[in-house]
Amino acid sequence: MSFVGGEHGSWRVEQLTAVVGTGLSTASHLAVVEDGSSPHPPGAWSLRGVTSNERYVERYERAALVARQQPLGRPAATEAALIPLRKSDAWWTLTQDDRREVLEERSKHITVGLEYLPAVSRRLHHSRDLGEEFDFLTWFEFAPADRGRFEELVGRLRETEEWTFVEREVDIRLRLSTPTR
Amino acid sequence: MSFVGGEHGSWRVEQLTAVVGTGLSTASHLAVVEDGSSPHPPGAWSLRGVTSNERYVERYERAALVARQQPLGRPAATEAALIPLRKSDAWWTLTQDDRREVLEERSKHITVGLEYLPAVSRRLHHSRDLGEEFDFLTWFEFAPADRGRFEELVGRLRETEEWTFVEREVDIRLRLSTPTR
Repeated sequence: MSFVGGEHGSWRVEQLTAVVGTGLSTASHLAVVEDGSSPHPPGAWSLRGVTSNERYVERYERAALVARQQPLGRPAATEAALIPLRKSDAWWTLTQDDRREVLEERSKHITVGLEYLPAVSRRLHHSRDLGEEFDFLTWFEFAPADRGRFEELVGRLRETEEWTFVEREVDIRLRLSTPTR
Repeated sequence: MSFVGGEHGSWRVEQLTAVVGTGLSTASHLAVVEDGSSPHPPGAWSLRGVTSNERYVERYERAALVARQQPLGRPAATEAALIPLRKSDAWWTLTQDDRREVLEERSKHITVGLEYLPAVSRRLHHSRDLGEEFDFLTWFEFAPADRGRFEELVGRLRETEEWTFVEREVDIRLRLSTPTR
């Protein structure tokens, strides 16, 4: 999956903010492109990621997520956010149990996210092993009426211990510009 | 990192066996190539993987591994094995805690591997998120005198519950054919 920022795409860029570290160049639109499909539209930048197996979620947590989450593409969810993020070497050299300890036991990343379901739909894309400039690309979709809830969610996550390991983060807010996705 | 099977490379292929599922075509030599360096030698096949963060090892296990393991490239380690492996969808849809439970608590993958250190050096490459045909490429190096120990290690792992999730495995045995690597 590639997210291409430029002058084309079904999502209009409303705001593009460098939260931590270097930002991305401005773009009026964002195209979401399946890899291997049509050639990519030309763009100022292109970020690539893949959905993959879960890395931290445990069995009881997945059951809670599956029970509450909604798919992407809901007709009412006409707003979206793409948050590319890179974590520090200090994060990546932690062992699996230490990363889980910070992410959930101390930062409540999974538990906090659950509170915002089903309003905020979410899909995580992994980029680090592809040699990309970001480690993760998280895509969120929500209805305009739930924008405040979404702001609260990202605000709470940015206050956590986990976020002290974030060394680059860009926050791109989007609005659906065409009736077909 | 790419492993290219063909007529060139500093490792001579001694044996190439399909353990489970489809094998790979025969090749006389194997070249180990850093990605982004020189152009790849032509080959019958090329397998790509990346070293990445650990997915299962816990803190006390890493300490034990680091205390015992030896680097790749030891002068005495003139034999090697490349074992490309793919696991089933049933494995990948398990949650993190369930995969850890099978891999270590029930199959003792990490504990068994420790018993063969420092004789057998090892490096794991991840391929699944790259869209490759295998999920993992594990590279082993050992001295000819330790070949029996290596056989015992792979034999023990293949008897585990974890290995019931392996749906494709190829075992490629190699011998250093040039004095410089």
